[in-house]
Amino acid sequence: MRILITGGAGFIGARLARTLLAREWLDGARIQQVVLADQAAPPADLLGDARVSSRVGKLLDHAQALRDEDFDGIFHLASAVSGECETDFDLGMTSNLDSTRALLDALRHRQQRGSAPTKLVFSSSIAVFGPDPAYPFPARVGDDTLPTPQTSYGAQKHICEHLIADYTRRGFIDGRAARLVTVTVRPGRPNGAASSFFSGIIREPLAGEVAPLPVDEDVAHPVASPQSTVDGLVKVFEASRGTFVGRSAMTMPGLNVTVRQMLDALERVAGPRVRALVKPERDERIAGIVANWPTGVVARRAEALGARAETSFEDIIRQYIADHERHPTALKGLKELG
Amino acid sequence: MRILITGGAGFIGARLARTLLAREWLDGARIQQVVLADQAAPPADLLGDARVSSRVGKLLDHAQALRDEDFDGIFHLASAVSGECETDFDLGMTSNLDSTRALLDALRHRQQRGSAPTKLVFSSSIAVFGPDPAYPFPARVGDDTLPTPQTSYGAQKHICEHLIADYTRRGFIDGRAARLVTVTVRPGRPNGAASSFFSGIIREPLAGEVAPLPVDEDVAHPVASPQSTVDGLVKVFEASRGTFVGRSAMTMPGLNVTVRQMLDALERVAGPRVRALVKPERDERIAGIVANWPTGVVARRAEALGARAETSFEDIIRQYIADHERHPTALKGLKELG
Repeated sequence: MRILITGGAGFIGARLARTLLAREWLDGARIQQVVLADQAAPPADLLGDARVSSRVGKLLDHAQALRDEDFDGIFHLASAVSGECETDFDLGMTSNLDSTRALLDALRHRQQRGSAPTKLVFSSSIAVFGPDPAYPFPARVGDDTLPTPQTSYGAQKHICEHLIADYTRRGFIDGRAARLVTVTVRPGRPNGAASSFFSGIIREPLAGEVAPLPVDEDVAHPVASPQSTVDGLVKVFEASRGTFVGRSAMTMPGLNVTVRQMLDALERVAGPRVRALVKPERDERIAGIVANWPTGVVARRAEALGARAETSFEDIIRQYIADHERHPTALKGLKELG
Repeated sequence: MRILITGGAGFIGARLARTLLAREWLDGARIQQVVLADQAAPPADLLGDARVSSRVGKLLDHAQALRDEDFDGIFHLASAVSGECETDFDLGMTSNLDSTRALLDALRHRQQRGSAPTKLVFSSSIAVFGPDPAYPFPARVGDDTLPTPQTSYGAQKHICEHLIADYTRRGFIDGRAARLVTVTVRPGRPNGAASSFFSGIIREPLAGEVAPLPVDEDVAHPVASPQSTVDGLVKVFEASRGTFVGRSAMTMPGLNVTVRQMLDALERVAGPRVRALVKPERDERIAGIVANWPTGVVARRAEALGARAETSFEDIIRQYIADHERHPTALKGLKELG
């Protein structure tokens, strides 16, 4: 089978590609080709696999070409992140809404010319949920919670969920939207996402660097590791159509933790001197965005598919450490201070 | 103040225009001009009012010009109807989604160049609600019911609600979406709306004509008269921003009735021989769409604004009769048979 991953050079996209290539099979069929579409080239290890090809450029520019090409499955992960969408409205509308619509219309075009509906997994987000004075958050949001997004990113993700639901109901595609919780620990540098600090407060101290904490320690939030996130996307792809009944969007599992619990776990894994590198430095813009996010999640439908988040934040930290054991600078703090 | 009504030559748009012109004031300001934008010219009585001007053409073509023009308020009623959207997907996406986005972007463009955010009332629909095996309808849908649309029309309306909510949250517009219940009794001929028969089974018998009934008599549905619908749109326009808290969409009041109760009311108003003109003639396509609609509504937030539907279906029939007392053919059945 031929698989397309949009955002395929990104952190989750590349990890998903590696996972699929290692599995060799998806949904009962052997994987012949994985096409990674992104604005940047994918990592070298992926390009070295004979089954991988890369398309560099904007998704919106690729979408027209997709009318002439059959894929058996698509993971649509390409997205502008929440912070960017709040500062640059046009960027968010183009990257998150227009690009998704163009992709869906390319798939519809193929279906209407006789192809089977393409299976598509869309990475939505629990940012579709926003608190509303008339509809306060339940303690834990889930599939039956009314989405009232309070960020442009959340609104765009939710609009795409509804497009995918309707294109699916019409038979143009076989679409599924997975509402991801915040993925942590991400490698690399902070990005424009308001959730970036959820990785920074673990990653930077492990590298021996100071990390600013822009919110209070009692902020609660659902998180998942990169690998459980990727495994969840695969579960959603492999789920039968019937699982989704009248809806294509599904809330994914998360470990519900506070920042304090994350830092306690860091201390248990890496010692108090590593934890002490996290310095409170309140950022009102980030704190304001995060205050509009759910504090916990319950994901019964996704769990019924077998999707799971970690049950301990230490496991999430240990996954990051295992991933980086060949990169001394990434774990310098752990070795020198811990 | 200058008011724009999109769909202003339509049944609700023209009635809204007449209501505004008769009121002379809206939201504390005198109405100087009412611009009616539609694909057809407005009725002659409206064109005869010196305060009225007309723009004939597609909304999508008008939207660019709206960047150079200030309106104090907009009622955005233009829409392809539910039946059309189900048979012609592209028509629905263009008329309902692309046109709304172009209108919102024109208003955003003005706001970003220094104009105050324009107040906009959008006619959404209770078609945003659809039954879902995983989330059955409550007995009566309302503001806190999870929208899971099962028609393209409903999906498009709901997507527009979320666009309007986000453009409002960002300060580009002051938008409000009113989820209208089915308006009955509409004059004229059946249109492409799946709800068309809710008017046909009253209007045609009153004119002495046979009316097919495409669904069972125990189908239940919330309805409102044209005048209470228009009055509700005015209430939503005049509501303070604070009324909408974190959400801009509001479910409007309806009279929850069964088809049988509608026909009983027809018999009480016009006699058994008029009622007997309604002939069961099941239409699976229409019955299937209507089966996906709510069977009742509760509208606490709109009622708190003073919006009201009728409390008796006889009152709705009598409004239609009063509207048509100078048109003998419209009430021929009432006079000959009743």
